[in-house]
Amino acid sequence: MPMLADPSVKYRPFPQVNLSDRQWPSRTITAPPRWLSTDMRDGNQSLIDPMDSEKKNRFFDLLVKIGVKEIEVGFPAAGSTEFDFISGLVRSGRIPDDVLVQVLTQSRDDLIVTSFESLAGAKQAIVHLYNAISPAWRQIVFGLERPQIKEIAVAGAKVLRDQAARFPDTDWHFEYSPETFSTAELDFSLECCEAVMDILQPTAERPLILNLPATVEAATPNIYADQIEYFGRNIPRRETVAISLHTHNDRGTGVAAAELGLMAGADRVEGCLFGNGERTGNCCLVTVALNMYTQGIDPGLDFSDIDQVISVVEHCNQLPVPARHPYGGELVFTAFSGSHQDAIKKGFAAQEQRNDALWQVPYLPIDPADLGRSYEAVIRVNSQSGKGGFAWVLEQDQGLKLPKRMQADFSRHVQQLADELGRELQAEDIWSVFQRVYRLGTPQPLQLVDYEETRAADGTRVFAGKLAVEGKVRTVSGRGNGLISSVVATLREGFGLDVEVRDYSEHAMATGTDARAAAYVECAASDGRTVWGVGIDEDVATASVRAILSAANALGLPSA
Amino acid sequence: MPMLADPSVKYRPFPQVNLSDRQWPSRTITAPPRWLSTDMRDGNQSLIDPMDSEKKNRFFDLLVKIGVKEIEVGFPAAGSTEFDFISGLVRSGRIPDDVLVQVLTQSRDDLIVTSFESLAGAKQAIVHLYNAISPAWRQIVFGLERPQIKEIAVAGAKVLRDQAARFPDTDWHFEYSPETFSTAELDFSLECCEAVMDILQPTAERPLILNLPATVEAATPNIYADQIEYFGRNIPRRETVAISLHTHNDRGTGVAAAELGLMAGADRVEGCLFGNGERTGNCCLVTVALNMYTQGIDPGLDFSDIDQVISVVEHCNQLPVPARHPYGGELVFTAFSGSHQDAIKKGFAAQEQRNDALWQVPYLPIDPADLGRSYEAVIRVNSQSGKGGFAWVLEQDQGLKLPKRMQADFSRHVQQLADELGRELQAEDIWSVFQRVYRLGTPQPLQLVDYEETRAADGTRVFAGKLAVEGKVRTVSGRGNGLISSVVATLREGFGLDVEVRDYSEHAMATGTDARAAAYVECAASDGRTVWGVGIDEDVATASVRAILSAANALGLPSA
Repeated sequence: MPMLADPSVKYRPFPQVNLSDRQWPSRTITAPPRWLSTDMRDGNQSLIDPMDSEKKNRFFDLLVKIGVKEIEVGFPAAGSTEFDFISGLVRSGRIPDDVLVQVLTQSRDDLIVTSFESLAGAKQAIVHLYNAISPAWRQIVFGLERPQIKEIAVAGAKVLRDQAARFPDTDWHFEYSPETFSTAELDFSLECCEAVMDILQPTAERPLILNLPATVEAATPNIYADQIEYFGRNIPRRETVAISLHTHNDRGTGVAAAELGLMAGADRVEGCLFGNGERTGNCCLVTVALNMYTQGIDPGLDFSDIDQVISVVEHCNQLPVPARHPYGGELVFTAFSGSHQDAIKKGFAAQEQRNDALWQVPYLPIDPADLGRSYEAVIRVNSQSGKGGFAWVLEQDQGLKLPKRMQADFSRHVQQLADELGRELQAEDIWSVFQRVYRLGTPQPLQLVDYEETRAADGTRVFAGKLAVEGKVRTVSGRGNGLISSVVATLREGFGLDVEVRDYSEHAMATGTDARAAAYVECAASDGRTVWGVGIDEDVATASVRAILSAANALGLPSA
Repeated sequence: MPMLADPSVKYRPFPQVNLSDRQWPSRTITAPPRWLSTDMRDGNQSLIDPMDSEKKNRFFDLLVKIGVKEIEVGFPAAGSTEFDFISGLVRSGRIPDDVLVQVLTQSRDDLIVTSFESLAGAKQAIVHLYNAISPAWRQIVFGLERPQIKEIAVAGAKVLRDQAARFPDTDWHFEYSPETFSTAELDFSLECCEAVMDILQPTAERPLILNLPATVEAATPNIYADQIEYFGRNIPRRETVAISLHTHNDRGTGVAAAELGLMAGADRVEGCLFGNGERTGNCCLVTVALNMYTQGIDPGLDFSDIDQVISVVEHCNQLPVPARHPYGGELVFTAFSGSHQDAIKKGFAAQEQRNDALWQVPYLPIDPADLGRSYEAVIRVNSQSGKGGFAWVLEQDQGLKLPKRMQADFSRHVQQLADELGRELQAEDIWSVFQRVYRLGTPQPLQLVDYEETRAADGTRVFAGKLAVEGKVRTVSGRGNGLISSVVATLREGFGLDVEVRDYSEHAMATGTDARAAAYVECAASDGRTVWGVGIDEDVATASVRAILSAANALGLPSA
């Protein structure tokens, strides 16, 4: 690869905003903004295959369901497809009374007229006027000076005012965007906005939305926040306008810019679900809203069934939500690493024990259940996983709670398999290696056929069993202080196998309707070897017997 | 969908840092940091299918090629796969002299020893020690108090120091991460780091890397910047440490946190290419580096063939780079919207005319060519596109430069097709409708067979042609002041067709080795209809003749 050319001749650093007494870095977001979804406009115009009306209707209904109250539904003057959809939606009666639809228009008489006509019959609506105002656009795209650019905005505002009068049955609201705000001179943005305010005469009760786009993200997000704070401090009659943020993600910081912009005093956020939108996308509304949620602020948007939201969005946009998208990605609640898995397991356990509702689980900034996601995908196992991972999977999948030391024993086998396969292990992989290692489900040299456990007169217990040895049934018995020791005695007396039980535990298995139990024993042979045995049975006593026989099979019978 | 429960009982706002005189919001990034790629560690441990050694080697070679000088190659104590790869890499001799490999280890004697052993024979290396220190981890994961947690760090540092002495032929460097820094008490982070410094005794010449992870992103990115500035101001012997940032993307602001962290005084950035990494991913090194590049700062990392980088990363990670990833996404240099396309075209034209090298193209914050991308994908056409889109495509694809007014004529047809198909139009779709509308390539009622153009004694020109009319060849002629008018006269005299040429232009076609020319004529008939005709030929004169005949065919011959 050739080295990149020196970028300093081709690119310039973005200038600082003169705002040394900025307040936003000391502020915190404490309340949700007004949300505007532009999925059906900025989002749609950036799709390889724009939505047809079936998809647009589905998207609209989804946005209403989530709780978005301001929805930009298109650009009516762009063509008949757009116009027909919008006027059809208005006539359909599917716009709830508390939802404002919004349409975008350039500042040209005929386009504005068309835009109003597309909304004929609407109960209420926002008409969104824009023109690009930054130096690069003035010089390169329009070849116009500041006064002419401002006049474009003013002329459009007058048409807005006059057209609104033509349709008095609709409750009209207005939005003005000095497009390319983030790369324009702040004084000129203010001048254009003030000129539009002079025409539209907003009031505190009916504010004008002033939308300040980072049409192209051009600087670190603190600069955008400075611009927003500067604008908010300097716009006259501040109470008669709603400052709206419209960020893009060209530098990967569109969400940050929106958040810092809110701290800088903005009232409204425009964006798209999962950050769709022109080029690198718009600000992601899901992320900004759920970021608030994890700080204890109700965002007013409902993502409690996020997978359903994803499914509709992916259908409509024909673009996948990336695997690592915050909150929405397939992998974002997943831990493969052993230490992470271990910490998460401890977090869940602590969460259950504590009385308060406060969510505090390591590596999980939000409870997946709040988004309608299960915990099953939280922990997945590959060669990076330690004991915590497969232990969690065995517990979730099979209801087995392995003792700590047994986890260490089993981890060698899991690690080996993961190394061999070089891929993520599925629950069935782990269960299959577990059955093989602990000799479950397959015929073994020594098998339990039947047994009786009786109490002797001296209080000791007698195990009398029929065991199949290499398929041949033998009747054997032993005596001890309890079940375990009587089975151990039986092994010694009947088969010459001397084992010592080092560890034992047993628990009811949570899964399924059958109340089975799982028993785990660690046995040491006289030659020093130690093995683990596992027994599963509907009867707690029989599970223990099976566990010891499992260990015996691992050690091998001297007489077999 | 049920409404989300009130989040305020479950989640708490993240507290502000007490730093009212913060300096970072007034600072700008002016120089690149040290870069550490953790693709092969944090990235790899988060993959569904971790890399095998073939993939790890490819990734390592890619990172070296890009220019990354510090590469975390794994977690040697995690298992034999990791250990064997790392020790194999060290022995392979493939680590350039100016590249430092880094390995991660928890603070446990045996793990640290294993880590050093994996690096035996390395010329130089970084051993990276970490332990989690935040309250949630202390309480939930470890059940330990502050002094014990600090002691874990100190004990590990001592082993680092002692193991380094065991392998004196390697030039050892150290990194310490107070893991979960972003959710820990700042004074305790400082305390742990200072305790590790006391053991390792770093100097300005051999600084200790103090890596401050946002293990889980827990607040707006300005808070992380505050934490970094606070830490940098309060760590003693500041000149003996390198402050390193390690951000994750749980709130979608990992890149912003790293950038604001650099403004807050950090020296080094850890991350992964295209933001791979645990859960929502690590800080994206591509984005942070190219963000600097677009501000005129050479990041020291070479992404001049970004598609090659993407290809290797996608092969190794088995995860796609998202379509809207800044700089890397498939769609990020693409404009479908007509007004965007128009502005971009004007920007390219202005760029060609200007003498300076400064990049200034609307909607394109970086020149795609700087990343090895062509301009072909910049403009794509769907039903959202205006005239600019197909005009660009016809120019790029066929070498045709349509006159402005002809674009308006053709746009109706493109719009109609886009509406009909409801999908993105490919270059061939546009070319096919162009040929149909302007009657190229298919037999027409009036066809040119051959012609001669001669100069009469009075200076006028005589067109004498053989034209096939409905397949029957006729010899016709006409006289005029030039070629165009002589052909018009021929149409009038030979076929009774009265046309007036309103507009005419012609240009050599850029594509291909054959020097063909394209001619465009707008003709008005006596009944007021106007049509456009197009002629393409190797001869500039013949192209003009064909263009007029194309228009004649559109109007229809009165006698045919």
